Amino acid sequence: MPKYVDHDKQKEIIAEAVWRIIAREGMEQVSVRKAAEEAGVSPGSLRHYFSSQSELFIFSMKSVSDRVRKRVQNAPFTGVPLDDMEMVLEEILPLTDETRTETEVWFTFIARAFTDAALSDVSHEVYDQTRAGIALIIQGLIKLKIAREDLDEELETERLFALIDGLAIHGVIRPAHCTPEMMIKTVRLHLHSLCR
Amino acid sequence: MPKYVDHDKQKEIIAEAVWRIIAREGMEQVSVRKAAEEAGVSPGSLRHYFSSQSELFIFSMKSVSDRVRKRVQNAPFTGVPLDDMEMVLEEILPLTDETRTETEVWFTFIARAFTDAALSDVSHEVYDQTRAGIALIIQGLIKLKIAREDLDEELETERLFALIDGLAIHGVIRPAHCTPEMMIKTVRLHLHSLCR
Repeated sequence: MPKYVDHDKQKEIIAEAVWRIIAREGMEQVSVRKAAEEAGVSPGSLRHYFSSQSELFIFSMKSVSDRVRKRVQNAPFTGVPLDDMEMVLEEILPLTDETRTETEVWFTFIARAFTDAALSDVSHEVYDQTRAGIALIIQGLIKLKIAREDLDEELETERLFALIDGLAIHGVIRPAHCTPEMMIKTVRLHLHSLCR
Repeated sequence: MPKYVDHDKQKEIIAEAVWRIIAREGMEQVSVRKAAEEAGVSPGSLRHYFSSQSELFIFSMKSVSDRVRKRVQNAPFTGVPLDDMEMVLEEILPLTDETRTETEVWFTFIARAFTDAALSDVSHEVYDQTRAGIALIIQGLIKLKIAREDLDEELETERLFALIDGLAIHGVIRPAHCTPEMMIKTVRLHLHSLCR
Protein backbone atom coordinates (compact mmCIF):
# COMPACT_ATOMS: atom_id res chain seq x y z
CA MET A 1 0.00 0.00 0.00
CA PRO A 2 1.52 3.39 -0.89
CA LYS A 3 2.31 5.69 1.98
CA TYR A 4 -0.45 8.29 2.27
CA VAL A 5 0.81 11.86 2.70
CA ASP A 6 -1.60 14.61 3.68
CA HIS A 7 -0.03 17.48 1.72
CA ASP A 8 -2.15 20.20 3.29
CA LYS A 9 -1.18 18.97 6.75
CA GLN A 10 2.50 18.85 5.74
CA LYS A 11 2.40 22.43 4.45
CA GLU A 12 0.67 23.53 7.64
CA ILE A 13 3.41 21.92 9.76
CA ILE A 14 6.03 23.71 7.68
CA ALA A 15 4.20 27.07 8.00
CA GLU A 16 4.10 26.69 11.77
CA ALA A 17 7.83 25.90 11.79
CA VAL A 18 8.41 29.12 9.82
CA TRP A 19 6.40 31.12 12.37
CA ARG A 20 8.42 29.68 15.24
CA ILE A 21 11.68 30.72 13.58
CA ILE A 22 10.31 34.21 12.88
CA ALA A 23 8.96 34.66 16.42
CA ARG A 24 12.23 33.44 17.95
CA GLU A 25 14.88 34.85 15.61
CA GLY A 26 13.29 37.13 13.00
CA MET A 27 12.45 36.76 9.31
CA GLU A 28 15.99 37.08 8.02
CA GLN A 29 16.85 33.80 9.80
CA VAL A 30 14.35 31.78 7.74
CA SER A 31 15.88 29.56 5.06
CA VAL A 32 14.54 26.48 3.29
CA ARG A 33 17.16 24.37 5.10
CA LYS A 34 16.38 25.80 8.54
CA ALA A 35 12.60 25.58 8.06
CA ALA A 36 12.98 21.91 7.08
CA GLU A 37 15.02 21.21 10.21
CA GLU A 38 12.52 23.06 12.45
CA ALA A 39 9.57 21.21 10.85
CA GLY A 40 11.32 17.84 11.10
CA VAL A 41 11.16 17.14 7.35
CA SER A 42 13.97 16.70 4.82
CA PRO A 43 15.05 19.79 2.82
CA GLY A 44 14.13 17.86 -0.36
CA SER A 45 10.65 17.20 0.98
CA LEU A 46 10.22 20.87 1.88
CA ARG A 47 11.41 21.92 -1.60
CA HIS A 48 8.67 19.73 -3.03
CA TYR A 49 6.22 22.30 -1.61
CA PHE A 50 8.25 25.52 -1.49
CA SER A 51 11.20 26.26 -3.70
CA SER A 52 12.24 29.58 -2.19
CA GLN A 53 12.17 31.67 0.98
CA SER A 54 9.66 33.95 -0.76
CA GLU A 55 7.19 31.09 -1.39
CA LEU A 56 7.58 29.97 2.22
CA PHE A 57 6.76 33.48 3.43
CA ILE A 58 3.69 33.87 1.19
CA PHE A 59 2.22 30.56 2.31
CA SER A 60 3.05 31.19 5.98
CA MET A 61 1.49 34.65 5.88
CA LYS A 62 -1.71 33.34 4.27
CA SER A 63 -1.75 30.54 6.77
CA VAL A 64 -2.00 33.00 9.72
CA SER A 65 -5.20 34.46 8.31
CA ASP A 66 -6.59 31.01 7.37
CA ARG A 67 -6.29 29.97 11.00
CA VAL A 68 -8.15 33.06 12.19
CA ARG A 69 -10.88 32.44 9.62
CA LYS A 70 -11.24 28.78 10.67
CA ARG A 71 -11.47 29.76 14.34
CA VAL A 72 -14.19 32.30 13.53
CA GLN A 73 -16.13 29.72 11.48
CA ASN A 74 -15.93 27.19 14.31
CA ALA A 75 -16.67 29.60 17.15
CA PRO A 76 -19.36 28.37 19.57
CA PHE A 77 -21.94 30.98 18.62
CA THR A 78 -24.77 31.56 21.08
CA GLY A 79 -27.37 33.33 18.90
CA VAL A 80 -27.15 36.44 21.09
CA PRO A 81 -25.96 39.01 18.51
CA LEU A 82 -23.70 41.17 20.70
CA ASP A 83 -22.10 38.13 22.35
CA ASP A 84 -21.44 36.49 18.99
CA MET A 85 -19.98 39.70 17.53
CA GLU A 86 -17.69 39.97 20.54
CA MET A 87 -16.65 36.33 20.03
CA VAL A 88 -15.70 36.97 16.39
CA LEU A 89 -13.60 40.03 17.27
CA GLU A 90 -11.86 38.16 20.09
CA GLU A 91 -10.72 35.45 17.67
CA ILE A 92 -8.60 38.12 15.93
CA LEU A 93 -6.96 39.28 19.18
CA PRO A 94 -3.84 37.80 20.83
CA LEU A 95 -5.61 36.41 23.91
CA THR A 96 -3.59 33.16 24.22
CA ASP A 97 0.10 32.22 23.85
CA GLU A 98 -0.71 30.61 20.51
CA THR A 99 -2.50 33.63 19.07
CA ARG A 100 0.19 35.95 20.47
CA THR A 101 2.78 34.16 18.35
CA GLU A 102 0.41 34.39 15.35
CA THR A 103 0.00 38.13 15.88
CA GLU A 104 3.74 38.79 16.29
CA VAL A 105 4.43 36.86 13.10
CA TRP A 106 1.61 38.66 11.31
CA PHE A 107 2.99 42.11 12.15
CA THR A 108 6.49 40.97 11.20
CA PHE A 109 5.10 40.02 7.76
CA ILE A 110 3.26 43.35 7.54
CA ALA A 111 6.46 45.29 8.22
CA ARG A 112 8.25 43.28 5.53
CA ALA A 113 5.35 43.92 3.13
CA PHE A 114 6.33 47.63 3.03
CA THR A 115 9.29 46.63 0.83
CA ASP A 116 8.13 43.25 -0.58
CA ALA A 117 5.52 43.37 -3.37
CA ALA A 118 4.43 39.71 -3.06
CA LEU A 119 3.79 40.01 0.70
CA SER A 120 2.11 43.36 0.10
CA ASP A 121 -0.40 41.59 -2.20
CA VAL A 122 -1.16 38.99 0.50
CA SER A 123 -1.50 41.77 3.06
CA HIS A 124 -4.03 43.66 0.92
CA GLU A 125 -6.03 40.49 0.30
CA VAL A 126 -6.21 39.63 4.00
CA TYR A 127 -6.98 43.21 5.06
CA ASP A 128 -9.80 43.41 2.51
CA GLN A 129 -11.29 40.14 3.81
CA THR A 130 -10.97 41.24 7.42
CA ARG A 131 -12.53 44.60 6.66
CA ALA A 132 -15.48 42.78 5.05
CA GLY A 133 -15.92 40.76 8.26
CA ILE A 134 -15.80 43.88 10.42
CA ALA A 135 -18.32 45.57 8.08
CA LEU A 136 -20.73 42.65 8.64
CA ILE A 137 -20.69 43.37 12.37
CA ILE A 138 -21.54 47.05 11.91
CA GLN A 139 -24.19 46.16 9.30
CA GLY A 140 -25.59 43.55 11.71
CA LEU A 141 -25.98 46.14 14.46
CA ILE A 142 -27.83 48.41 12.03
CA LYS A 143 -30.07 45.68 10.54
CA LEU A 144 -31.00 44.33 13.95
CA LYS A 145 -31.90 47.91 14.96
CA ILE A 146 -29.69 47.76 18.03
CA ALA A 147 -27.28 50.37 16.63
CA ARG A 148 -27.53 54.03 17.57
CA GLU A 149 -29.69 55.75 15.00
CA ASP A 150 -27.04 58.13 13.69
CA LEU A 151 -24.38 55.44 13.04
CA ASP A 152 -22.16 56.13 10.00
CA GLU A 153 -21.61 52.62 8.61
CA GLU A 154 -18.36 53.23 6.74
CA LEU A 155 -16.77 55.37 9.43
CA GLU A 156 -17.73 52.94 12.21
CA THR A 157 -16.33 50.02 10.20
CA GLU A 158 -13.00 51.81 9.86
CA ARG A 159 -13.03 52.81 13.54
CA LEU A 160 -13.74 49.27 14.77
CA PHE A 161 -11.19 47.76 12.37
CA ALA A 162 -8.47 50.20 13.49
CA LEU A 163 -9.33 49.60 17.15
CA ILE A 164 -9.06 45.80 16.77
CA ASP A 165 -5.74 46.01 14.92
CA GLY A 166 -4.42 48.52 17.45
CA LEU A 167 -5.39 46.22 20.34
CA ALA A 168 -3.76 43.28 18.53
CA ILE A 169 -0.45 45.11 18.14
CA HIS A 170 -0.57 46.49 21.70
CA GLY A 171 -1.38 43.00 23.01
CA VAL A 172 1.99 41.78 21.70
CA ILE A 173 4.10 44.93 22.15
CA ARG A 174 2.93 46.02 25.61
CA PRO A 175 1.25 42.91 27.08
CA ALA A 176 1.70 44.15 30.66
CA HIS A 177 -0.74 47.01 29.95
CA CYS A 178 -2.85 45.65 27.11
CA THR A 179 -3.73 42.37 28.83
CA PRO A 180 -6.27 39.85 27.48
CA GLU A 181 -8.73 41.12 30.11
CA MET A 182 -8.19 44.74 29.02
CA MET A 183 -8.66 43.80 25.34
CA ILE A 184 -11.91 41.96 26.07
CA LYS A 185 -13.23 44.86 28.18
CA THR A 186 -12.33 47.34 25.45
CA VAL A 187 -14.07 45.35 22.71
CA ARG A 188 -17.18 44.99 24.89
CA LEU A 189 -17.21 48.70 25.77
CA HIS A 190 -16.78 49.66 22.13
CA LEU A 191 -19.57 47.40 20.83
CA HIS A 192 -21.94 48.65 23.53
CA SER A 193 -21.03 52.27 22.76
CA LEU A 194 -22.35 51.68 19.21
CA CYS A 195 -25.74 50.57 20.52
CA ARG A 196 -28.72 52.56 21.73
CA MET B 1 38.47 79.78 13.18
CA PRO B 2 37.67 76.11 13.77
CA LYS B 3 34.93 74.60 11.67
CA TYR B 4 31.72 74.43 13.71
CA VAL B 5 29.88 71.12 13.49
CA ASP B 6 26.36 70.83 14.86
CA HIS B 7 26.54 67.26 16.14
CA ASP B 8 22.83 66.95 16.89
CA LYS B 9 22.01 68.13 13.37
CA GLN B 10 24.52 65.66 11.89
CA LYS B 11 23.00 62.76 13.83
CA GLU B 12 19.53 63.83 12.73
CA ILE B 13 20.63 63.83 9.07
CA ILE B 14 22.07 60.34 9.53
CA ALA B 15 18.87 59.09 11.20
CA GLU B 16 16.79 60.39 8.30
CA ALA B 17 19.11 58.63 5.85
CA VAL B 18 18.57 55.39 7.80
CA TRP B 19 14.79 55.84 7.56
CA ARG B 20 14.98 56.34 3.81
CA ILE B 21 16.96 53.12 3.37
CA ILE B 22 14.51 51.23 5.62
CA ALA B 23 11.43 52.64 3.84
CA ARG B 24 12.91 51.87 0.41
CA GLU B 25 14.75 48.58 0.95
CA GLY B 26 14.08 47.23 4.45
CA MET B 27 16.12 47.12 7.67
CA GLU B 28 18.45 44.33 6.61
CA GLN B 29 19.87 46.67 3.94
CA VAL B 30 21.12 49.21 6.49
CA SER B 31 24.88 49.20 7.06
CA VAL B 32 27.21 51.87 8.45
CA ARG B 33 28.75 52.26 4.97
CA LYS B 34 25.39 52.55 3.18
CA ALA B 35 23.93 54.96 5.75
CA ALA B 36 27.03 57.18 5.35
CA GLU B 37 26.59 57.21 1.58
CA GLU B 38 22.84 57.99 1.84
CA ALA B 39 23.49 60.78 4.37
CA GLY B 40 26.32 62.25 2.29
CA VAL B 41 28.94 61.92 5.05
CA SER B 42 32.12 59.85 5.17
CA PRO B 43 31.93 56.39 6.81
CA GLY B 44 34.58 57.59 9.29
CA SER B 45 32.48 60.59 10.19
CA LEU B 46 29.41 58.37 10.68
CA ARG B 47 31.43 55.98 12.88
CA HIS B 48 32.30 58.96 15.05
CA TYR B 49 28.63 58.95 16.10
CA PHE B 50 27.55 55.33 15.60
CA SER B 51 29.91 52.36 15.71
CA SER B 52 27.42 49.65 14.76
CA GLN B 53 24.18 48.94 12.91
CA SER B 54 22.55 48.40 16.31
CA GLU B 55 23.48 51.90 17.55
CA LEU B 56 22.20 53.39 14.29
CA PHE B 57 18.86 51.61 14.74
CA ILE B 58 18.44 52.67 18.38
CA PHE B 59 19.11 56.32 17.58
CA SER B 60 16.93 56.26 14.45
CA MET B 61 14.04 54.66 16.33
CA LYS B 62 14.24 57.23 19.17
CA SER B 63 14.47 59.95 16.58
CA VAL B 64 11.04 59.04 15.10
CA SER B 65 9.38 59.62 18.46
CA ASP B 66 11.43 62.79 19.16
CA ARG B 67 10.04 64.29 15.96
CA VAL B 68 6.47 63.47 16.94
CA ARG B 69 7.05 65.00 20.39
CA LYS B 70 8.53 68.19 18.88
CA ARG B 71 5.61 68.53 16.49
CA VAL B 72 3.14 68.16 19.37
CA GLN B 73 5.04 70.76 21.44
CA ASN B 74 5.03 73.21 18.54
CA ALA B 75 1.44 72.62 17.40
CA PRO B 76 -0.57 75.83 16.87
CA PHE B 77 -2.93 75.27 19.80
CA THR B 78 -6.16 77.24 19.77
CA GLY B 79 -7.26 77.02 23.40
CA VAL B 80 -10.41 75.13 22.40
CA PRO B 81 -9.88 71.83 24.29
CA LEU B 82 -11.42 69.37 21.82
CA ASP B 83 -9.72 71.02 18.85
CA ASP B 84 -6.36 70.98 20.60
CA MET B 85 -6.77 67.34 21.64
CA GLU B 86 -7.60 66.45 18.05
CA MET B 87 -4.50 68.35 16.90
CA VAL B 88 -2.24 66.37 19.27
CA LEU B 89 -3.65 63.02 18.10
CA GLU B 90 -3.30 64.01 14.46
CA GLU B 91 0.41 64.69 14.92
CA ILE B 92 0.84 60.95 15.64
CA LEU B 93 -1.02 59.89 12.48
CA PRO B 94 0.47 59.44 8.97
CA LEU B 95 -1.38 62.34 7.35
CA THR B 96 1.47 63.55 5.10
CA ASP B 97 4.11 61.83 2.93
CA GLU B 98 6.72 62.69 5.54
CA THR B 99 4.80 61.24 8.47
CA ARG B 100 3.84 58.19 6.38
CA THR B 101 7.52 57.35 5.99
CA GLU B 102 8.00 57.91 9.74
CA THR B 103 5.13 55.54 10.52
CA GLU B 104 6.34 52.82 8.13
CA VAL B 105 9.80 53.00 9.64
CA TRP B 106 8.34 52.98 13.16
CA PHE B 107 6.38 49.78 12.55
CA THR B 108 9.40 48.18 10.89
CA PHE B 109 11.37 48.90 14.08
CA ILE B 110 8.50 47.54 16.21
CA ALA B 111 8.46 44.28 14.25
CA ARG B 112 12.23 43.96 14.71
CA ALA B 113 11.83 44.71 18.43
CA PHE B 114 10.06 41.34 18.85
CA THR B 115 13.47 39.66 18.49
CA ASP B 116 15.86 42.52 19.42
CA ALA B 117 16.15 43.37 23.14
CA ALA B 118 17.71 46.83 22.62
CA LEU B 119 14.95 47.95 20.24
CA SER B 120 12.37 46.39 22.54
CA ASP B 121 13.62 48.69 25.35
CA VAL B 122 13.25 51.76 23.11
CA SER B 123 9.80 50.58 22.06
CA HIS B 124 8.64 50.24 25.67
CA GLU B 125 10.01 53.67 26.55
CA VAL B 126 8.24 55.33 23.63
CA TYR B 127 4.98 53.45 24.19
CA ASP B 128 4.97 54.44 27.88
CA GLN B 129 5.52 58.11 26.95
CA THR B 130 2.82 58.00 24.30
CA ARG B 131 0.39 56.31 26.65
CA ALA B 132 1.04 59.10 29.19
CA GLY B 133 0.16 61.67 26.50
CA ILE B 134 -3.04 59.83 25.58
CA ALA B 135 -3.94 59.58 29.30
CA LEU B 136 -3.63 63.39 29.58
CA ILE B 137 -6.31 63.76 26.90
CA ILE B 138 -8.77 61.47 28.68
CA GLN B 139 -7.97 63.14 32.03
CA GLY B 140 -8.46 66.54 30.38
CA LEU B 141 -11.94 65.57 29.19
CA ILE B 142 -12.81 64.45 32.72
CA LYS B 143 -11.33 67.49 34.51
CA LEU B 144 -13.00 69.93 32.14
CA LYS B 145 -16.28 68.11 32.80
CA ILE B 146 -16.93 67.60 29.11
CA ALA B 147 -16.55 63.83 29.38
CA ARG B 148 -19.53 61.52 29.74
CA GLU B 149 -20.13 60.96 33.41
CA ASP B 150 -19.52 57.21 33.42
CA LEU B 151 -16.13 57.36 31.65
CA ASP B 152 -13.63 54.71 32.82
CA GLU B 153 -10.32 56.59 32.65
CA GLU B 154 -7.97 53.62 32.26
CA LEU B 155 -10.13 51.72 29.80
CA GLU B 156 -10.75 54.81 27.65
CA THR B 157 -7.02 55.58 27.61
CA GLU B 158 -6.28 52.08 26.32
CA ARG B 159 -9.13 52.30 23.80
CA LEU B 160 -8.01 55.66 22.40
CA PHE B 161 -4.36 54.57 22.32
CA ALA B 162 -5.21 51.35 20.44
CA LEU B 163 -7.45 53.25 18.04
CA ILE B 164 -4.71 55.78 17.21
CA ASP B 165 -2.07 53.09 16.67
CA GLY B 166 -4.52 51.04 14.58
CA LEU B 167 -5.28 54.06 12.40
CA ALA B 168 -1.55 54.75 12.05
CA ILE B 169 -0.82 51.23 10.82
CA HIS B 170 -3.87 51.20 8.52
CA GLY B 171 -2.88 54.60 7.14
CA VAL B 172 0.35 53.07 5.82
CA ILE B 173 -0.85 49.52 5.01
CA ARG B 174 -4.19 50.35 3.35
CA PRO B 175 -3.96 54.06 2.46
CA ALA B 176 -6.66 53.76 -0.22
CA HIS B 177 -9.23 53.02 2.51
CA CYS B 178 -7.73 54.61 5.59
CA THR B 179 -7.14 58.01 3.99
CA PRO B 180 -6.02 61.13 5.90
CA GLU B 181 -9.61 62.40 5.69
CA MET B 182 -10.95 59.12 7.11
CA MET B 183 -8.38 59.17 9.95
CA ILE B 184 -9.29 62.75 10.87
CA LYS B 185 -13.03 61.99 10.80
CA THR B 186 -12.50 58.89 12.95
CA VAL B 187 -10.47 60.76 15.58
CA ARG B 188 -13.10 63.52 15.70
CA LEU B 189 -15.97 61.04 15.98
CA HIS B 190 -14.19 59.14 18.75
CA LEU B 191 -13.37 62.23 20.81
CA HIS B 192 -16.95 63.47 20.49
CA SER B 193 -18.30 60.04 21.47
CA LEU B 194 -16.46 60.41 24.79
CA CYS B 195 -18.25 63.68 25.56
CA ARG B 196 -21.71 64.39 26.94
